[in-house]
Amino acid sequence: MKVNLKALSDALGLSRTTVSRALNGYDDVSETTRERVVKAAQEMGYVADPTARRLATGRADMIGIVYPFDAGDLGDPRFGEVVAGITERLAERNLDFVIASARPHAELDTYRRLVDGKLVDGLIVARTLVDDPRVAYLQSRGFPYVAYGRTQVAGPYAWFDFDNEAGARDAVRRLIGFGHRRIAMISAPLALSFAAQRRTGFLAAMREAGVEPDPALLVECPFTRDGGLQATQALLARAERPTALLVDNNIAGGGAFRALVDSGLRLGHDMSLIVYDGVPQDVAHPHRVTAVVQPTGHGTGRALAELMLRLVDDGARGQQLEMPGIEAGDTDGPMRA
Amino acid sequence: MKVNLKALSDALGLSRTTVSRALNGYDDVSETTRERVVKAAQEMGYVADPTARRLATGRADMIGIVYPFDAGDLGDPRFGEVVAGITERLAERNLDFVIASARPHAELDTYRRLVDGKLVDGLIVARTLVDDPRVAYLQSRGFPYVAYGRTQVAGPYAWFDFDNEAGARDAVRRLIGFGHRRIAMISAPLALSFAAQRRTGFLAAMREAGVEPDPALLVECPFTRDGGLQATQALLARAERPTALLVDNNIAGGGAFRALVDSGLRLGHDMSLIVYDGVPQDVAHPHRVTAVVQPTGHGTGRALAELMLRLVDDGARGQQLEMPGIEAGDTDGPMRA
Repeated sequence: MKVNLKALSDALGLSRTTVSRALNGYDDVSETTRERVVKAAQEMGYVADPTARRLATGRADMIGIVYPFDAGDLGDPRFGEVVAGITERLAERNLDFVIASARPHAELDTYRRLVDGKLVDGLIVARTLVDDPRVAYLQSRGFPYVAYGRTQVAGPYAWFDFDNEAGARDAVRRLIGFGHRRIAMISAPLALSFAAQRRTGFLAAMREAGVEPDPALLVECPFTRDGGLQATQALLARAERPTALLVDNNIAGGGAFRALVDSGLRLGHDMSLIVYDGVPQDVAHPHRVTAVVQPTGHGTGRALAELMLRLVDDGARGQQLEMPGIEAGDTDGPMRA
Repeated sequence: MKVNLKALSDALGLSRTTVSRALNGYDDVSETTRERVVKAAQEMGYVADPTARRLATGRADMIGIVYPFDAGDLGDPRFGEVVAGITERLAERNLDFVIASARPHAELDTYRRLVDGKLVDGLIVARTLVDDPRVAYLQSRGFPYVAYGRTQVAGPYAWFDFDNEAGARDAVRRLIGFGHRRIAMISAPLALSFAAQRRTGFLAAMREAGVEPDPALLVECPFTRDGGLQATQALLARAERPTALLVDNNIAGGGAFRALVDSGLRLGHDMSLIVYDGVPQDVAHPHRVTAVVQPTGHGTGRALAELMLRLVDDGARGQQLEMPGIEAGDTDGPMRA
């Protein structure tokens, strides 16, 4: 005979909720009761029905992220490393991590189904927007979330971010130190938090050096390789070319690199290039491209998971973690930014 | 007052199972009953509890895939395109698609939790092994799955695959047509179905041409860029070098390309190279590398989803779909394989 939660609860003379919470280690059940329940469950051969268990505890034991798998978008190997870090940390607490693939043009609907369906206990929101409808939705539902990137929201919330302003500022200071004045910047869409922050850092460093940025050299382009390629070609076609270029992301940065090399310009001589998060060595070969390096990866994933665990355990909303952006000059190669 | 399933069922004088199945569109409920239930649900303001609904229907309305996010592994942008195709097709039937991140060294445990927890209605198993414990597990549980890649299993099962043997055979025929006899092959671990199939195709084409393959030129290496790089360096260090090389995957292929170019060999003159699934143009630049091209991508994803839908709807196990592998010679570039 299969012993279910009802049979076990009846035998113990306890409510199903109490038995369930005891079995799942909630600390609002006394240790004495917990031991009694666990002993009876073992003796009676209780087998948890997973759906019933979730019904009783309200827990899915899964944390999720919604990711829009657009064609050609998944060019970022670092996403995999971040996921590996999240998975590892959550596994230590016996939680799983799932990536829900957002339906085309319906990302917010995917959030709604996950939340309404209680399919996950918490969500990580990546690539935050300055004004983010996903965060607004989760905030309105009181659903646990960690923002990977800051955003505008009323009240405390858990977030993890790099110091994007500092990274861009340091890159511009370096270019100015080499004597550059006509410095262009190619940005991902400025609705994205990181793009807005890096643009702010760029402008601050220019003004700090007494250089008035030329608005024509501040370009916003799609978050794609071809976006970066075309934006760079447009900059090169101008009568007054820039002498240096900062690209605020590695996806568009790959296209910018290609456009510069194919135009015949010598990197580090005719044109200086700094790419946020760099250009993969296999692509840049034999050139080397100066990068603003953020330690995105496994550690980022563990940190995101850590914030999530605190949130799920304690409901602590006000946790934040800011990591510095690090500028890495590659001084081995032929390139001097 | 919140009207739940019990209240609705009581008001209608029907069992909860019948009401639930009527609301969820199961066709074992008569149309008359269904209309009566839907009307009452609307009038009474019935709100489905998602977990209770899953308990009643046994359906999660989600299809999943388990993916091991090892550091550095997610170098394949095509995975994203396949996921986009799966998501699109499933969304047409109002199902979601989730990627469960496998815990380190515990991929099979992740399968067990998804199956036991009824968290998904079906699973897609990618990168099948010749002898695959994941498939064996799902088969033993009678759980709906689609194998992305063939595998050894007793009885009919649903699979999608390319004609890997034909692709490798055509590549070797091409190299032999150019006069090559000392042809090396770098394979992903041969426990992987695709690697075993491509190796078989290689050997078949060699024997068909009356060329005895040199066992020393048949190399198995890790499924990584550095694996391909080191395997190629080892081949080049041999007293009797190969004159042509076929790499059976694009990940190791990128490393093989790098090793050949860095060794000073002129591709297409001193050494011919064909890479299964190719080397990205940004990496190969300014060279061009001949590729065996499979139309992996969005269409593959839709096809996988289609097989899954038939399985979930009808329990049809014996569905298979084989797509041809296509060899694409790039004749524009300086390279001649």
